[in-house]
Amino acid sequence: MRIAVDAMGGDFAPAVVIEAVADALREIPDVDIHLVGHQQKLAHYLLKAKLKESDRLHFVHAEEVVEMSDLSTAAIRSKRHSSITVAAGLVAEKKADGVISAGHTGAAVAATKVRMRMAPGVDRPAIATLMPAIGGRFVLTDAGANTDCDPLNLAQFAVMGELYAKFALGIENPRVGLLSVGGEDVKGNSLTKEAFKILSKMPINFVGNVEGNDMFHRVADVVVCDGFNGNVALKTAEGIAGAIGTWLKEALTKDAVRQVGAFLAQNAFRDLKAISNSEEYGGAPLLGINGVCIIGHGASSPKAVKNAIRVANEFAKHSLPEKIAARIQECNVAVGVKTAASKTDS
Amino acid sequence: MRIAVDAMGGDFAPAVVIEAVADALREIPDVDIHLVGHQQKLAHYLLKAKLKESDRLHFVHAEEVVEMSDLSTAAIRSKRHSSITVAAGLVAEKKADGVISAGHTGAAVAATKVRMRMAPGVDRPAIATLMPAIGGRFVLTDAGANTDCDPLNLAQFAVMGELYAKFALGIENPRVGLLSVGGEDVKGNSLTKEAFKILSKMPINFVGNVEGNDMFHRVADVVVCDGFNGNVALKTAEGIAGAIGTWLKEALTKDAVRQVGAFLAQNAFRDLKAISNSEEYGGAPLLGINGVCIIGHGASSPKAVKNAIRVANEFAKHSLPEKIAARIQECNVAVGVKTAASKTDS
Repeated sequence: MRIAVDAMGGDFAPAVVIEAVADALREIPDVDIHLVGHQQKLAHYLLKAKLKESDRLHFVHAEEVVEMSDLSTAAIRSKRHSSITVAAGLVAEKKADGVISAGHTGAAVAATKVRMRMAPGVDRPAIATLMPAIGGRFVLTDAGANTDCDPLNLAQFAVMGELYAKFALGIENPRVGLLSVGGEDVKGNSLTKEAFKILSKMPINFVGNVEGNDMFHRVADVVVCDGFNGNVALKTAEGIAGAIGTWLKEALTKDAVRQVGAFLAQNAFRDLKAISNSEEYGGAPLLGINGVCIIGHGASSPKAVKNAIRVANEFAKHSLPEKIAARIQECNVAVGVKTAASKTDS
Repeated sequence: MRIAVDAMGGDFAPAVVIEAVADALREIPDVDIHLVGHQQKLAHYLLKAKLKESDRLHFVHAEEVVEMSDLSTAAIRSKRHSSITVAAGLVAEKKADGVISAGHTGAAVAATKVRMRMAPGVDRPAIATLMPAIGGRFVLTDAGANTDCDPLNLAQFAVMGELYAKFALGIENPRVGLLSVGGEDVKGNSLTKEAFKILSKMPINFVGNVEGNDMFHRVADVVVCDGFNGNVALKTAEGIAGAIGTWLKEALTKDAVRQVGAFLAQNAFRDLKAISNSEEYGGAPLLGINGVCIIGHGASSPKAVKNAIRVANEFAKHSLPEKIAARIQECNVAVGVKTAASKTDS
């Protein structure tokens, strides 16, 4: 498949992205890459990585870059020649099958929505992220694409998250839970109470409300919420995990006995660190648009970016966007939603 | 001061509550307790704890109990003689200065709102909880009293949280942050964007948006959000911390070398555990009602319940509810909100 790579996206771009592209071309035999970015700025790094244009590597110029400080929608409107917009455009023009970026998340969402458009029947796209839990991982969606949602949006996130869980976690019939403040059906806010009703009517394995703490006991394979809540939950988990790491380090270096203990147990701490490592997934997909899009963490390593390319390639090979569109149509019918034509949505 | 104690509230009630009351009477010289519950059901435990009615301990009968499975509002409507409603009634009737319960949170919120009513100018009460962070604690509010909020509610939670931070953390001029999905002023959902504008006009130390991960670096002393988000954040933090504990245990017992290391470093793990221990605060206050209310965790230990009594006693001595009412009036004026008379709110 053909993957458009945003060379300018990420805290360590373009160096990390170009290193990742070199690795991807070596390790993933069936991928072609369209490297999108400011060619003059890339030249030095390409030379260093000994990368030249070939039938598997195409260079596409993009004059502008979306900076992390830019506002997403404004950036996409004013910077029509930014690397992420040009990369998304390649998919829209059928010159590529998917796009990956480790840059500005909001800009990637806005650019792909505008250029690639929503899949038929999907109202809003959702970021799906894999979260570690006891005994495995679960999908949290939406992790931040939409700050304000309506109940149908949440129900559609569930459908898209279900397909992603099947694909990424290999679960046959993923259990879908609704993030709420109590396990009982009646608990929640006005948004989740309405979403609960729609989810109950859909032909999915809906297991009801799931609380923030229960997520980590993997009571559901997919946890659905609006993008505001999802982002808060994701970052809260990151924040407290980081704090625990800091406290543990402090506690383990307090005296010599503890230091010896920590030295002997060092492999245990390495194991612990590995659990939260999401490098192998490379990033979070944006589901519900016409084409594959993987959004990497700003601080992505070359390995993470390479894996984002690998995952995007796999998604495209398995026609995940088309499968999502078909499943959404099916679920829309089940709850009596008329499927509108493909549309863009700010 | 006189504190009404819900004897029937909590997973281990009444045993734990009565043990706590005995300890409180011994250790806190200036507290009088009204123990509210089903007297026949309490008799055995009172005998065991050698507690008799005195000028410092009063027994108040309540025929009913709110079960954890009850719906909060329905329970308060149908069980008019439940221990929490009777206890809140004692404060309303000026027979007590505060109430504590480790029972059903929703029922405690509903009962105190109905019986004690909102403080003048306060639209909705908020649960304020102390969260651990690197280098200290911060106040998260609302942690679950209100699932649906308007922007003014959030602004008022900030004002109440500020006073609680002054009191509980001893901070002179607490920094107030708004929980959101980006540090920039313009980021957020429709609720937080409006709340941001109101908070900017209030005479408080508002430091802008705070992200879920930054909370744990203590970028603010008070973090404000709606009760749905607050509850999700709180439980997500609890959940991932619990999962990390499980993973750490597994990793440390994998082989003999790690086990020796873990043994030597055991005091470090004890220190780590102590950070998340909230027993000394006893519970989370419900701020914004006419009188003191502390809501304990369902699984509260006798020490936690005793400390809830101690904290309630301190709050009452320092007239925290009256100070909150005065400060709310001041901030309402600053943002042009007309202060309504004391009212109840479902």
